[in-house]
Amino acid sequence: MINGQSRVYAAVLSPVVDGGQYSIRRVVDQWINVEARIICDGHEVIQAAIQFKPLDSKEWKEHRIWSKAEDLWGGRFQVESQGMWVYRVCGWVDHGLSWREGLLKKAQDGQFVKTELNDGIPILESIMKLYKSDKSTVTYLKKLIVLIRDETKYKEALTGVLSNELQHILYTCPEKKFLSHSKEYLVYVDRKKALFSAWYEFFPRSASPETGKHGTFKDCQEILPRVKEMGFDVLYFPPIHPIGEVNRKGKNNATTANPADVGSPWGIGSKLGGHDAIHPELGTLQDFKELIAAAKEMDIEIAMDLALQCAPDHPWVKDHPTWFKWRSDGTVQYAENPPKKYQDILPIYFETDDWKALWEAIRDVTLYWIKQGVTIFRVDNPHTKPFVFWEWLIAEVKKVHPDIIFLSEAFTRSALMYHLGKIGFTQSYTYFSWKNSKYDLINYMNELTSGTTAEIFRPNFWPNTPDINTFPMQNGNQSLYMQRIFLAATLSSSYGIYGPAYEMLIHEAMPGKEEYYRSEKYEIYHWDWEARNPLTMIITMLNRIRQNHPALQETNNWENCPVQNEHLIAYYKQNDEGTDKILCVVNLHPFERQTGNLQAPLHRIGVHPGQQFVVQDLISGNSWIWSQEWNYVALDPGMPFHLFHVRG
Amino acid sequence: MINGQSRVYAAVLSPVVDGGQYSIRRVVDQWINVEARIICDGHEVIQAAIQFKPLDSKEWKEHRIWSKAEDLWGGRFQVESQGMWVYRVCGWVDHGLSWREGLLKKAQDGQFVKTELNDGIPILESIMKLYKSDKSTVTYLKKLIVLIRDETKYKEALTGVLSNELQHILYTCPEKKFLSHSKEYLVYVDRKKALFSAWYEFFPRSASPETGKHGTFKDCQEILPRVKEMGFDVLYFPPIHPIGEVNRKGKNNATTANPADVGSPWGIGSKLGGHDAIHPELGTLQDFKELIAAAKEMDIEIAMDLALQCAPDHPWVKDHPTWFKWRSDGTVQYAENPPKKYQDILPIYFETDDWKALWEAIRDVTLYWIKQGVTIFRVDNPHTKPFVFWEWLIAEVKKVHPDIIFLSEAFTRSALMYHLGKIGFTQSYTYFSWKNSKYDLINYMNELTSGTTAEIFRPNFWPNTPDINTFPMQNGNQSLYMQRIFLAATLSSSYGIYGPAYEMLIHEAMPGKEEYYRSEKYEIYHWDWEARNPLTMIITMLNRIRQNHPALQETNNWENCPVQNEHLIAYYKQNDEGTDKILCVVNLHPFERQTGNLQAPLHRIGVHPGQQFVVQDLISGNSWIWSQEWNYVALDPGMPFHLFHVRG
Repeated sequence: MINGQSRVYAAVLSPVVDGGQYSIRRVVDQWINVEARIICDGHEVIQAAIQFKPLDSKEWKEHRIWSKAEDLWGGRFQVESQGMWVYRVCGWVDHGLSWREGLLKKAQDGQFVKTELNDGIPILESIMKLYKSDKSTVTYLKKLIVLIRDETKYKEALTGVLSNELQHILYTCPEKKFLSHSKEYLVYVDRKKALFSAWYEFFPRSASPETGKHGTFKDCQEILPRVKEMGFDVLYFPPIHPIGEVNRKGKNNATTANPADVGSPWGIGSKLGGHDAIHPELGTLQDFKELIAAAKEMDIEIAMDLALQCAPDHPWVKDHPTWFKWRSDGTVQYAENPPKKYQDILPIYFETDDWKALWEAIRDVTLYWIKQGVTIFRVDNPHTKPFVFWEWLIAEVKKVHPDIIFLSEAFTRSALMYHLGKIGFTQSYTYFSWKNSKYDLINYMNELTSGTTAEIFRPNFWPNTPDINTFPMQNGNQSLYMQRIFLAATLSSSYGIYGPAYEMLIHEAMPGKEEYYRSEKYEIYHWDWEARNPLTMIITMLNRIRQNHPALQETNNWENCPVQNEHLIAYYKQNDEGTDKILCVVNLHPFERQTGNLQAPLHRIGVHPGQQFVVQDLISGNSWIWSQEWNYVALDPGMPFHLFHVRG
Repeated sequence: MINGQSRVYAAVLSPVVDGGQYSIRRVVDQWINVEARIICDGHEVIQAAIQFKPLDSKEWKEHRIWSKAEDLWGGRFQVESQGMWVYRVCGWVDHGLSWREGLLKKAQDGQFVKTELNDGIPILESIMKLYKSDKSTVTYLKKLIVLIRDETKYKEALTGVLSNELQHILYTCPEKKFLSHSKEYLVYVDRKKALFSAWYEFFPRSASPETGKHGTFKDCQEILPRVKEMGFDVLYFPPIHPIGEVNRKGKNNATTANPADVGSPWGIGSKLGGHDAIHPELGTLQDFKELIAAAKEMDIEIAMDLALQCAPDHPWVKDHPTWFKWRSDGTVQYAENPPKKYQDILPIYFETDDWKALWEAIRDVTLYWIKQGVTIFRVDNPHTKPFVFWEWLIAEVKKVHPDIIFLSEAFTRSALMYHLGKIGFTQSYTYFSWKNSKYDLINYMNELTSGTTAEIFRPNFWPNTPDINTFPMQNGNQSLYMQRIFLAATLSSSYGIYGPAYEMLIHEAMPGKEEYYRSEKYEIYHWDWEARNPLTMIITMLNRIRQNHPALQETNNWENCPVQNEHLIAYYKQNDEGTDKILCVVNLHPFERQTGNLQAPLHRIGVHPGQQFVVQDLISGNSWIWSQEWNYVALDPGMPFHLFHVRG
């Protein structure tokens, strides 16, 4: 229904994702910077505000916004609790300010404005009602009205009306007559860990202190102190379900397994059970729950792998044959990416007419593990299952468990990765692993931290995974491993490693492939869980610094800093309040010392050229006093970075 | 309601205005180029189409679209009738093509694909049903199925399945299982004149052949042949209503009028009537209707001025006092832009509580004139009346009279001008009048013909109006006047002039202002309506060429062509079918010959460097044969342009 008296047109320009079709994402206490178009016919003074509230709250909160440029308004608000929030802008003709401004212009022009003063009395009377609980303002306004009415007090009345005090009164508590609202837009607010998390992945079956023995959840419990010491707060396990025996893969991904081969944990399901069961050699459900509880004591959350695929002997194949695609020869369709074949894996047939029961079964599996204490799911290849399904599943889960985090493991085209973000995934793996040059790193960070992507996609940077052993890493020395984890941990507020392979510098590869030789995916490893080395020390320091520095607890605050050397990259981050300022410099050359001049972002640091500021390296403890915009830096491969805390 | 089997996500990326909040604009028979995101989980072949229809039609038409880049699809459609149309994209997993492609990859890999061939039989049977009226295809498919079933014909069956013929059959008539649709978007389709029009403005009261006599509609009728001869198809009159007598303005905008002064036609309303009346000295309603009819005979439409403001003696002031703002001294608020005052004009008070009656009265006035034969309204200062009002008024009118055209005379900030386009104005005046340098012209054309603006804003270029006599024009010679009208008529498919001031090179100005001295707004002029000169000749030629060349009948097809001279501007236009190609070159220096090298858009012309093509100047008749990308041009101020018709 039109209100024909509403003259202002108010529209949110940003953040808006696909015309408002998808919510933007924040975590609790984050700010949202809003740009709006607020326009009106005529020449009167208009004012505007941003309004926001939790979706199910009845009362809107409101902050005033201000004109940033011609017809462009800006402002911001903070989301204080988890769940769905909603925001909009509104605008109005400010009759009080318009009256005062017209009067001011005429007075400056030397016109006699007695009538104009009188015109304002009804406005002042309306404003007075809005201030009824503020006695001093009411008194002020009453006096002013008396002055205006007094024929002998023209000058005093004019002075009163043109005072800054009245301007302040009119601005602060306006009569918002004929208010116009924009469309409403949604923000989904997660808990803080959705944005800030340090992940450690290991295979629980490699957790045994004894060589050749299958690790158990009880063994994992013994490893928790090491994970805690290094500072990780998410512990992610590959699938813990029974492993298929039919067409099981052997060591090094061999098509035929030996009887002793343990198989890939991603080949889920056997006569021992499916997605809701635990591989017996790992222990019992009770063991798993105890492990979750022990981890929780240390502020570590267990992330479970949600890999929606089945080994040929998964119970679902018998119990729900229509959930799989049957071929003309009476067999079930196995996974293919022609001409490649994966006979150990049956994809779920999401086009089944029985899709509703299928969806519900997967939801029930998810809820079952949540009930056992799982709070995070790392979702295997979500881009090979329908988007509509994920959108539904994540919404169903978050409706009852808003704390749950879903990490998307979609290594695919960016349009699909970002779409998975839009439809609900909390975080996503990225192509960081393959961004090695300064040029690639800067470009990728710009892509991730700007535009729509910044609003709906939270990156999680992994230098390695059991599937990713990049060519540079295969040829890498300790400097490269230090450099890559430093980049991951400081560029992105969420990052992770597959360990202990990473900190042990394991990098033997299948020839010509970016895969590990004798991948832990297909066999049990024995690790020295007691070992410490320079890399574990750096990881420990990095995670501690990340905990203490809010600037490192978000990603979109990333800003590149020019350095005159193609092997040196530098970037700056500060938190929203500007109380924490971090400057990182990294030598990307693993073998040679690099030097160069770095342009410090003085306008962000809050100093003028010539003014001193301190940069203290949080790793080495060394401090430098800089006072210029361009500053000399030198980094050796032995310690290839500075993590500067900047103080003005 | 979700269909869980729909795996494709389909979204229109462009054209989309404000997330679909506003319709885009086209005229009948124009094309719409659509970009879409079509993505799907997995690796199967997907296909997509654009669907479109008049909003009130039940049946969607459909064109296939194609993949332009990774996950980006493109296609186009044509709107064939006036009114609101709707479009959307849709996508589906093409099971037929996916089957054939998987089979092809395996066959190329040397695999034995007997089972895969059999897997396709149900697919081929489904496709056969879709072709049931096409006997030869049905026979072809039947034979292929027989081959596949025949154990001895493996090779023949494989050859048949991998044939281009089957590819074509599968592509052309797919089984669109589990189709996904995007959101729907609107296109408002106007008649052709909305985009292509040549306007001529004169004051009917200056139409008398006798000096000092008030012109009449009958006099105007005598001038129609001249307007027709010059090739204009819209004749726009300043307001024809009774002119206010209270606070009437005198010559040269003097605050006090002499009794003989005729006043400004924009000071509307007196005891003789308001917006629905005719100024008696111009003639009767019958005279006006006869003029409209006579103009129509010559394919000229009369545009009426819709100026929603009142002289102090307008009947509405007495009859509807609440439609005006009353001041504390008992007077009605006159127009102000502090400190400036316009006592002859009372703005309508759109914030009135009686706004519904006000809106309806204005709608009734508009419909009244439409009933008398008016088809076009030039709306005076729409940006000083509420947007919601215009949105409603234009929709109300177009609901019953889709032919009506509204030209917005909003000289204000671009955000407001473009918003008026979004809410329904058919055309708009522009800042062309002040774009004189090559740099400004190119920038402005880029702004108008790209992004959202191109979709919702149809420019109308005026070198002059009764209000606009720019500084360059004040100092202009015949060359400048030729140049400016050439630019207006060829850059924009809609343009206009205020005549005969323009073609008579009238340019005496109020000192220091961009206004005419002794403006025709405040007095009656006498013109020699029989006069012809080089300028009228050029105008006549330009309008005839515009009529014959569809490339000049749209604006968004504008493309800049580089020329190595800052005083030479060149641009290229071709129609959508590519059958008409126009290249314009203009010397922007009114006093000196300019020469330079021009880069012809060979890729658009459709020739290779070295290949000959002809450029024929449609003004001079001279032809050149060019064969290179860069070509020498030279233009004298005497004839400061080429209007080349390009033929490959």
